[in-house]
Amino acid sequence: MHKTLRAVLLLIGMSFAISALADEGMWTFDNFPAAKMRAKYGWAPDAAWLKHAQLSSIRLAQGCSASLVSPDGLVMTNHHCARECLSDLADAKHDYIAKGFYAATGADEKRCPELEANQLVEITDVTKQMEAATAGKSDRAFHEAERTAIAKIESACGTAADVRCQVVTLYHGGVYDLYKYKRYQDIRVVFAPEEIAAFFGGDPDNFTFPRFDLDTAFVRIYEQGKPLHADNYLKFATRGVKEGDIAFTSGNPGATEREDTLAQLEYQRDVAQPFILNLYSELRGVLTEFGTKGPEEARTSNTMRFLVENSLKAYKGRQLALVQGSLMADKARAEAAFRKRVMADPKLAAADSGAWNAVATAVSHGRDIFVRNSMLERIPPRLSPLLGHAVALNRYAAEIGKPDGQRLEEFSDANFPALKLQITSPAPIHAKLEKTILAWWLTKLRENLGTSDGDVRKLMGKRSPEEIAAALVDGTKLTDAKLRARLLTGGAKAINAYHDPLIDFARVLDPLARAVRTDYEDNVKAVITKNAALIAKARFVLEGKNAYPDATFTLRLSYGAVAGYQENGHAVAPVTNFAEAYAHATGRDPFKLPDSWIKAEKTVNPDTNLDFASTNDIIGGNSGSPVIGRNGEAIGLIFDGNIQSLGGDFGFDASVNRAVAVDVSGITEALKSIYHADRLVKELTP
Amino acid sequence: MHKTLRAVLLLIGMSFAISALADEGMWTFDNFPAAKMRAKYGWAPDAAWLKHAQLSSIRLAQGCSASLVSPDGLVMTNHHCARECLSDLADAKHDYIAKGFYAATGADEKRCPELEANQLVEITDVTKQMEAATAGKSDRAFHEAERTAIAKIESACGTAADVRCQVVTLYHGGVYDLYKYKRYQDIRVVFAPEEIAAFFGGDPDNFTFPRFDLDTAFVRIYEQGKPLHADNYLKFATRGVKEGDIAFTSGNPGATEREDTLAQLEYQRDVAQPFILNLYSELRGVLTEFGTKGPEEARTSNTMRFLVENSLKAYKGRQLALVQGSLMADKARAEAAFRKRVMADPKLAAADSGAWNAVATAVSHGRDIFVRNSMLERIPPRLSPLLGHAVALNRYAAEIGKPDGQRLEEFSDANFPALKLQITSPAPIHAKLEKTILAWWLTKLRENLGTSDGDVRKLMGKRSPEEIAAALVDGTKLTDAKLRARLLTGGAKAINAYHDPLIDFARVLDPLARAVRTDYEDNVKAVITKNAALIAKARFVLEGKNAYPDATFTLRLSYGAVAGYQENGHAVAPVTNFAEAYAHATGRDPFKLPDSWIKAEKTVNPDTNLDFASTNDIIGGNSGSPVIGRNGEAIGLIFDGNIQSLGGDFGFDASVNRAVAVDVSGITEALKSIYHADRLVKELTP
Repeated sequence: MHKTLRAVLLLIGMSFAISALADEGMWTFDNFPAAKMRAKYGWAPDAAWLKHAQLSSIRLAQGCSASLVSPDGLVMTNHHCARECLSDLADAKHDYIAKGFYAATGADEKRCPELEANQLVEITDVTKQMEAATAGKSDRAFHEAERTAIAKIESACGTAADVRCQVVTLYHGGVYDLYKYKRYQDIRVVFAPEEIAAFFGGDPDNFTFPRFDLDTAFVRIYEQGKPLHADNYLKFATRGVKEGDIAFTSGNPGATEREDTLAQLEYQRDVAQPFILNLYSELRGVLTEFGTKGPEEARTSNTMRFLVENSLKAYKGRQLALVQGSLMADKARAEAAFRKRVMADPKLAAADSGAWNAVATAVSHGRDIFVRNSMLERIPPRLSPLLGHAVALNRYAAEIGKPDGQRLEEFSDANFPALKLQITSPAPIHAKLEKTILAWWLTKLRENLGTSDGDVRKLMGKRSPEEIAAALVDGTKLTDAKLRARLLTGGAKAINAYHDPLIDFARVLDPLARAVRTDYEDNVKAVITKNAALIAKARFVLEGKNAYPDATFTLRLSYGAVAGYQENGHAVAPVTNFAEAYAHATGRDPFKLPDSWIKAEKTVNPDTNLDFASTNDIIGGNSGSPVIGRNGEAIGLIFDGNIQSLGGDFGFDASVNRAVAVDVSGITEALKSIYHADRLVKELTP
Repeated sequence: MHKTLRAVLLLIGMSFAISALADEGMWTFDNFPAAKMRAKYGWAPDAAWLKHAQLSSIRLAQGCSASLVSPDGLVMTNHHCARECLSDLADAKHDYIAKGFYAATGADEKRCPELEANQLVEITDVTKQMEAATAGKSDRAFHEAERTAIAKIESACGTAADVRCQVVTLYHGGVYDLYKYKRYQDIRVVFAPEEIAAFFGGDPDNFTFPRFDLDTAFVRIYEQGKPLHADNYLKFATRGVKEGDIAFTSGNPGATEREDTLAQLEYQRDVAQPFILNLYSELRGVLTEFGTKGPEEARTSNTMRFLVENSLKAYKGRQLALVQGSLMADKARAEAAFRKRVMADPKLAAADSGAWNAVATAVSHGRDIFVRNSMLERIPPRLSPLLGHAVALNRYAAEIGKPDGQRLEEFSDANFPALKLQITSPAPIHAKLEKTILAWWLTKLRENLGTSDGDVRKLMGKRSPEEIAAALVDGTKLTDAKLRARLLTGGAKAINAYHDPLIDFARVLDPLARAVRTDYEDNVKAVITKNAALIAKARFVLEGKNAYPDATFTLRLSYGAVAGYQENGHAVAPVTNFAEAYAHATGRDPFKLPDSWIKAEKTVNPDTNLDFASTNDIIGGNSGSPVIGRNGEAIGLIFDGNIQSLGGDFGFDASVNRAVAVDVSGITEALKSIYHADRLVKELTP
């Protein structure tokens, strides 16, 4: 190449990298800012491109994203999204987490006990119906009216078991959309590498870049016992990305709080996040030491420790964003300025100016009840699957007879199938781990609510946490998935007639947990939703509907480009390759590559891309999202963001916020040269 | 008693309780506000009273307070202050923590390996000398000049091995005082109850009231192998306290930050405290599970877990004060108002108005280096006594040849004897616990500084934390106290010639840890000291010297009264008794009373006072302080504060801040009726 020309290209590349800084936005598919993108990139996708991307995208109901990558229902997602499935299918002799998994034939594909996949097929605006239902109502009445209207709309839409309908509250109540999904519950695992390849660098490297991870798994959607035929899927790109390539992510960012008021952010900074950070830090310590007790203890606690460590690091990143830099000061300034504009408009002032104070009052009540709500309602089922089953069964008996709209949200007709899959899941229960975790939870409950708290006394009496945990776990038969399924089939009568120490304990817990949940839903959540909607509408009036809504674990498209960034004064290159992965290895956990990689070192192409960073705006829930190229092909697989991206919960720092993906060319190379997964390679690159 | 008269007395009691709210102040003995106290209580101590209290007060150099309570050198302190001594003296067959300790004869009294006791005999103002030495200097030069001047003054004063001299920086540099102590290093344990009696209610009840703890231990000071003859000691009161009784505490509050600027408090709220809270939470989890591995693991980790849990709860209380209520807003307002007054005075404005910004800049640098300083310099010796020994020995070799004022502070002539006691202590090293803790520390080091951090690489290379920890602990002979003593005696030459994996590791660590410590001392601490002194002096000019200085782990007197308080809308009574203790027991840890108590239930007087709350202004370090009555007698023994008192680090909330003490009448009753410690009873109440 002519030298001068090359220098010019380099220059373009560089200036591009600089102009590529700001790609904020998690756009709904019905409001993609094509003009804005075209202005910056000289090109934007058309309606057909968008439809193809939408229908190729898959949501994993338990909290991840994914994509169809073959006409035979093959789905690409992260190893860490298939991790619980692999752990559920494993036993002491088949450790699929440590050894990986590969189904050499279709018959070897194993069904994941709890995985549900959703494909978004239609979006309908139902704001008017919702507004009519909640007009003039507040607090409990508002919450009930909202729930009833949502259930009614969802029921009318959900005409078959394989249709999942969800009314999505966007702009915190400014817009309500009905999202209609195709629901799949027969998902089978096809391939997963060894954990140490998927999560190479472990917790120390998590949420950093450069990375060298093959955080990849393939599962397959089955329908009526056969692989799904997919009309829309993403073809695998045949070469790796390079700096400046246009990159989209299509996935389900879980939750952001960018529209929150200052009072809400202060609550996060001062109350919610510190509490969770301390609690999970201690739990992490417990799990770390528990895992040193023996190989079975290590194996059975490994997934939970991974989830806790991952959450912890995410919370730390979020907290950093709130206490470092100018985010809080910027929010305070922007909020004050916007409130002034609302006050200056007589109509808006009359309708909306009280909204911020109403939110602040609700948040203040939220501060008071946060710990109780966490310790009694939110956290127990997450910590203990066993207690979670008992709580869910017991609540099912109480909820199922109620009209759809009056039930707890997770028992609505639209949501219950996903919960049912969990309750009846044959995933093993680890009794020793359950006892440790339950005893620990009770200790924390007593510590946080106080020894003489009425709820604590009702739950614990004079017994010690260890005694109670042992009695619950040893005394229950709910470890048996078949029994749980039978009870569910038997309905309220069968459940209410069933007694054992665990479900009886859940019956003592239930009114206490419900009381604080109701308080939260009526006096915090409903008030915030109602008033945040007023703020959102004032924004629509003053600024138009040009903004994207906060993330809601629903499908969003982000556009951007493959790009590095500056960190501590040095440039971070955007793409890594296999040679760098081998160089990063120390032979010691978590920097140890698996034997398969060591064996293949000579045959794998060292220059093939492995991971890359891009400017896409993503957050937790986006894990497993495909990175899509300009031609609608899969070019990568999102598995992480850098530490700076975690502040994305509260605001987007365009200069350093980066998404982190596996390059599909790296996936293909690994499948070919390391794993010899020929059947899969042929399906992906026919 | 005549009914009407009694009603009047009750009324007086009540109104007194209300007027007793505000007893803020940790007063130095040379600036006690007698007039202020007299105005409120109608009485105040005279010079003789103060001298007697001062000379009866004892500081335990490792971080507690205590008092002489007999002419034969008997010293009263908390069980939790003697806990490490009891743990050090214990072995698998003699668990003095679980079973308690009682020396039936003088010959049975056992020497504590690491305890040093100090008695404050003289206070001299040396501000002028110090100011002359540091005049016109900044940063590193300021720090060096300050250290040199301090060492010079301390050396001139410390004329004998049993004299400990310390220049105390009061008002953050506004005043320098020379404190001259008598130093005692032969301290023997006389009595301690079972831990479950001392710490009844455990972590759940810690920092709460009402309490029912016998957190009491007795040790004895020996001089030249014989019990010390004490001219000044506190006689035991012969009856229990009652609401309204005047109460003094004479002890050594560790550190408060009430004079800190807003920038410093934000740093505490946003950076320092959250980091420690997360780190210790995780460590707590590790220790909790470690302790379940077996009885030896439980025994050897018990004291560390106790210390970690105690710190954690204290940090939580401090953090609550910063994020709840109006403390931060009050500080911001007061600081702004005071800065305005400084600006309005031309002389002060010229000299001092830049002080706040200078502090803020230093604090900002402190934010940047906090984690490195914590993980490399401050925390390792606290976590691992073994690594602490290696670090100290290695540093001794480097420091001992330098002029006194240029050494690291803990190696100065005045301070080194206390450190030497630790280095040569025969306290057992628990190898399994050391390995767990060292591996955990290295994991956190790597996590917090980053995998590719230069310091991390130097320390860890390609080895795993577990490998390194095993190599250090298995490979060292520094577990042998005699070897450590020999090396110390051999000086730099012997130490430098000695090699094993642990001390060689300490040699790699040392320059990294020193670098960040020096950075902190020169660019954070020195700048803050210099500028905080300017602020303090501006305050002396504008407000006079009527305030007490922030706590500095030096002797302070607080006055107040026995008083209850209001909590969540109900009244908390100020005094508990033995009957309530028995009622509080559930038979399960940590609400289980020891067998000795169960056996004595019939004989112990149920109405005798056990614990009480008072309005005294105390903080960590005050543990073990005597509560002194109007007549100069011991009426109680401080062992805790309520959770509200922990905010006392940053500001005093007069309505709910309470000190918590054991009533000496409860101590006497327990010694008599439960422990049958006749020799001790006779000595205390002759």
